[in-house]
Amino acid sequence: MTEPPDPDDAPTRARLFVTVALADGAPVALDARATHYLRNVLRLGPGAEIALFNGRDGEFRARLDAVGKHAAQATVLALRRAQRPEPDIWLLFAPVKRARIDLIVEKATELGVARLVPVITHRTAVARVNLERLASIAIEAAEQCERLSVPAVAAPAPLDAVLAGWPAGRRLFAADEAGGGVPLGAALQGAQPGPWALLIGPEGGFADAELDALRQFQFVTPVGLGPRVLRADTAVTAALAVVQSWIGDWAHPPRS
Amino acid sequence: MTEPPDPDDAPTRARLFVTVALADGAPVALDARATHYLRNVLRLGPGAEIALFNGRDGEFRARLDAVGKHAAQATVLALRRAQRPEPDIWLLFAPVKRARIDLIVEKATELGVARLVPVITHRTAVARVNLERLASIAIEAAEQCERLSVPAVAAPAPLDAVLAGWPAGRRLFAADEAGGGVPLGAALQGAQPGPWALLIGPEGGFADAELDALRQFQFVTPVGLGPRVLRADTAVTAALAVVQSWIGDWAHPPRS
Repeated sequence: MTEPPDPDDAPTRARLFVTVALADGAPVALDARATHYLRNVLRLGPGAEIALFNGRDGEFRARLDAVGKHAAQATVLALRRAQRPEPDIWLLFAPVKRARIDLIVEKATELGVARLVPVITHRTAVARVNLERLASIAIEAAEQCERLSVPAVAAPAPLDAVLAGWPAGRRLFAADEAGGGVPLGAALQGAQPGPWALLIGPEGGFADAELDALRQFQFVTPVGLGPRVLRADTAVTAALAVVQSWIGDWAHPPRS
Repeated sequence: MTEPPDPDDAPTRARLFVTVALADGAPVALDARATHYLRNVLRLGPGAEIALFNGRDGEFRARLDAVGKHAAQATVLALRRAQRPEPDIWLLFAPVKRARIDLIVEKATELGVARLVPVITHRTAVARVNLERLASIAIEAAEQCERLSVPAVAAPAPLDAVLAGWPAGRRLFAADEAGGGVPLGAALQGAQPGPWALLIGPEGGFADAELDALRQFQFVTPVGLGPRVLRADTAVTAALAVVQSWIGDWAHPPRS
């Protein structure tokens, strides 16, 4: 009962992030990661059509010219989707164990976060963060979810240092699982236009002194995420969805 | 800088779901699963205080009397939190691969779903569902997130059969990733009081014939989840959070 998909409308499975400039007719060299995916996962060869995006020039159709073991060549054909502004939302999160931190990066990317900032809090149990792995998870999630950009992943920093150097004009919604905040939906109802940021603490919650410090900052709005205690990765996905739904880009349909 | 938690206020780590009736002074026999958790994970022995809930009578403090290898005994002390009504939200979801289906059950439980219904769709790739494993994931997530109930897990059924036997008065928000729906937030703005249900399709999306069939039902509202293509487990968490935030119980603070 399924019609064959319209090739201009259906998502291209081979959708790759590149860092080079994209323009009609330009040759593009694909790196080892992209080549592995094209050759060993999708089993594509010369002549196959792929899609390329770089976070600046939009998404382009491209044709594979050559596929080697560790490198491939493509030629850009034509623009498929123009670049457009995206909501400017940062996610500050306390690093958690490996499987869960991977989920945080994947979900935050799917939900349109512009910048991921690992913050070390009083009760943060995980000190070492593999930034390279997180960056590649963000790239893969962006490729899968048809985003036109890849979020930046900042180096981990102590929460108080991040707050001390906070940029003017960016509101920070801080999830307070101790119950001190207003419901996130209510906080968003009166929210000024962006930029915004969201802070999700460690699984043990913030220390009292951290909560007190957070409340001192004019740019911080403590918020509540409902009556149940959420895992850190659940809280990230849930809160970002509510933000995107209330004041972000969820009013836009897919592939628009 | 952290104060010792108030024992009546702090979450009890040993929080267990039981099926028997709970009342002051009642003896409770704990099964092998609970005993393993108490003995081998938390390393608790006789005299330790735990919390028990059964989805009907509220949450009670209880004292461990004896901990054997495969069974334990406790005595109920006193009510800690009264049972209260919870939002009546069902989740219909197409089964996906093991790690992702586990996440769907965990997240839906944390986000307060009352009933989980695996539905077989045209493009559902996974036919076999281990209901026993899903039920135990739901129990563990309910224990962790301080819910007073555990969601029911229904046996998998074809989507058209579930729709044909749909109960009167329950609105179904069906996530249409092809872009045919109104944004979820807009759909919720005019929503009637519950009960509600949410339908999240398979990773390949619904077939055109399925979407056409869904649109025929008066109780179905097709909804959009924003411009990015979400993985099935992301869509579950994201959509449920938006529903709870708009028309559910996210206005309540934790442990209220």
